[in-house]
Amino acid sequence: MLTDFGHVDPYVGIMKAVMLGISPGSRFIDLTHEVPPQSVAVGALLLDGAVSYLPSGCVVLVVVDPGVGTPRRPIAVKAGGFYFVAPDNGVLSMALSRFDAVETVELVEEAYRLQNPSHTFHGRDIFSPAAAYLAAGVELSELGPSAHDLVMGRIAQAQRFAQGWVGEVLHIDHFGNAITNIQGSLCPVGATLELSDGRRVTVGRTYGEVPLGAPVALVGSTGRLEVSVNGGSAAAVLGLDLGSSLRLFNDVRSDSHL
Amino acid sequence: MLTDFGHVDPYVGIMKAVMLGISPGSRFIDLTHEVPPQSVAVGALLLDGAVSYLPSGCVVLVVVDPGVGTPRRPIAVKAGGFYFVAPDNGVLSMALSRFDAVETVELVEEAYRLQNPSHTFHGRDIFSPAAAYLAAGVELSELGPSAHDLVMGRIAQAQRFAQGWVGEVLHIDHFGNAITNIQGSLCPVGATLELSDGRRVTVGRTYGEVPLGAPVALVGSTGRLEVSVNGGSAAAVLGLDLGSSLRLFNDVRSDSHL
Amino acid sequence: MLTDFGHVDPYVGIMKAVMLGISPGSRFIDLTHEVPPQSVAVGALLLDGAVSYLPSGCVVLVVVDPGVGTPRRPIAVKAGGFYFVAPDNGVLSMALSRFDAVETVELVEEAYRLQNPSHTFHGRDIFSPAAAYLAAGVELSELGPSAHDLVMGRIAQAQRFAQGWVGEVLHIDHFGNAITNIQGSLCPVGATLELSDGRRVTVGRTYGEVPLGAPVALVGSTGRLEVSVNGGSAAAVLGLDLGSSLRLFNDVRSDSHL
Repeated sequence: MLTDFGHVDPYVGIMKAVMLGISPGSRFIDLTHEVPPQSVAVGALLLDGAVSYLPSGCVVLVVVDPGVGTPRRPIAVKAGGFYFVAPDNGVLSMALSRFDAVETVELVEEAYRLQNPSHTFHGRDIFSPAAAYLAAGVELSELGPSAHDLVMGRIAQAQRFAQGWVGEVLHIDHFGNAITNIQGSLCPVGATLELSDGRRVTVGRTYGEVPLGAPVALVGSTGRLEVSVNGGSAAAVLGLDLGSSLRLFNDVRSDSHL
Repeated sequence: MLTDFGHVDPYVGIMKAVMLGISPGSRFIDLTHEVPPQSVAVGALLLDGAVSYLPSGCVVLVVVDPGVGTPRRPIAVKAGGFYFVAPDNGVLSMALSRFDAVETVELVEEAYRLQNPSHTFHGRDIFSPAAAYLAAGVELSELGPSAHDLVMGRIAQAQRFAQGWVGEVLHIDHFGNAITNIQGSLCPVGATLELSDGRRVTVGRTYGEVPLGAPVALVGSTGRLEVSVNGGSAAAVLGLDLGSSLRLFNDVRSDSHL
Repeated sequence: MLTDFGHVDPYVGIMKAVMLGISPGSRFIDLTHEVPPQSVAVGALLLDGAVSYLPSGCVVLVVVDPGVGTPRRPIAVKAGGFYFVAPDNGVLSMALSRFDAVETVELVEEAYRLQNPSHTFHGRDIFSPAAAYLAAGVELSELGPSAHDLVMGRIAQAQRFAQGWVGEVLHIDHFGNAITNIQGSLCPVGATLELSDGRRVTVGRTYGEVPLGAPVALVGSTGRLEVSVNGGSAAAVLGLDLGSSLRLFNDVRSDSHL
């Protein structure tokens, strides 16, 4: 499960209760319920960083759904040995781009929804039942007719410039690490990253190789370039926020400290 | 489980560990652990919104317990195909009002508590063991003698006035939706809700039918009237807080925009 | 599981996914994921308060790891009927001091790690696989060679003075209770605790025996002296914070109110 429902309300627990009523043997992995409210882009990014670690055969239930109650389609997708269940708003698009064959249906069959679904909580009334029926062995095709032309996500891509790549901060994690849209494969150790205020940070390997309180750029656990501060919060220390722009210079300078 | 123990401390995990020691096959649904500290009324409300979705036969463990260590009674209740375990302070009363026959015992049998219970953490020492023994098949009557005259909750009820109903905000959810004590059955689409500052909001069906940033009142997923802002926080945008008063006018105006 | 990974990112969920891939029948107890970032001392304290309630035979996975990617050792420990898996930075030392025989290995066997472990997320790549293989029945000795001279924790100990004990606040819990490093066995009911601003609080038994809003010191659920306010937050009301110093006077005054 990956949602923006938070931990204050029983919304996630109610979804689990609905699913256990349909598929009593199911177990749950909570990826996160703290996607910023209605932030489809952050949801897509966090799902993408997690999907390659999920156990084969599991059902991935994703509810970040600013369009609940409008005509946006609820969908289920079979891809890469997983089922995905989500609103069709792009939240799956980064994860699905990893897989070749993708089979999608629109969740319209009333037999696989709760009765009298609400206008405001399709996570409970439509998405959870669909996920649970798939977990219980119902065929994808029974949930509804094939769906095509899925909405694509809108994650900003890093852009080339003469000396390297221009990117931006996509997510600030719990530790204050700033995760960017620059792929790790573009970032050799010793390269220079320039922040929007002109400060420069050198690409290294891990937090502990710079002094406590010093910044380091590194390829993080999701394969993306991250800006970190050893023992501190890069977001707070360096003033980074969602959308902060960054420039990565390709050439590894000979005066690198690393 | 529904508690006010939060996520910072191992309190909830310790309770689960105690329960698995007694009933190793048990699984848990966390409804919420973020009830505002010691807020029996909010705990009662959130439980009430969740109970009809719980799988039949489960044990509902509720610990919002400002009176821990005082003579308030620890109780277990059999009702509606569930067991409930909680302090007798009204936190169960809204949920129990859904059921006809209710059988209650006071949790006094020492064999079904941890030894030497603390004065400050009955969630661990009294309530969790009772819940786990019930889950493991122990009869309700073995946990203690029958108890009567349970404490009733103190949720403010909406009041009639000449043109409709006067209510108040009972809970602000994770998205900033303001959940009221006005039942959804009283709220036809097109009716007018007046906030305490005189602002008026029309009752609609879902968030997405008003422009981004605009307010809408609707019958939320728990069957109560909620005030929302499409893509935003009604609490922040409209200055709503717990206890904010509201007036619902019954007549659906002909100039309604919906 | 006890970590400082928080709930915003999918880090904990990814670890569980990795473990279920190796040991599909495993279930998880989340003690907390909200240890203050990289605070080995608070992690050690919270683990110590929980360990005696854990079901026998479980694997205790602890990741509070400011030294990730540096040469600090990843270890697994067999003690007291549990396995512990953690970085060797002292986070286990309080819990392990409860047990006599302790058998430790360094986690170096590549067969029991994910391939190509990252430099920044050993929780996913090294610790979770080790925990899951232990849960699945792999022998401790297969994970690596014996390790000795574990790093010891650095929890400040309460100190004697002529009239009692000088201690400090180690942790503020979710309710604002201030948990100290003074053992409960040193704190008779009626003794006086002096805060650093000279305010005096009497040792009692539970919150409800003082008026709403009034302070009380008591032996909390972890066996340590805590400072609390009935129905409120001691941290907020009394200005207590991590490291705030306290003096406990041994003699029980005859004018005690309790």
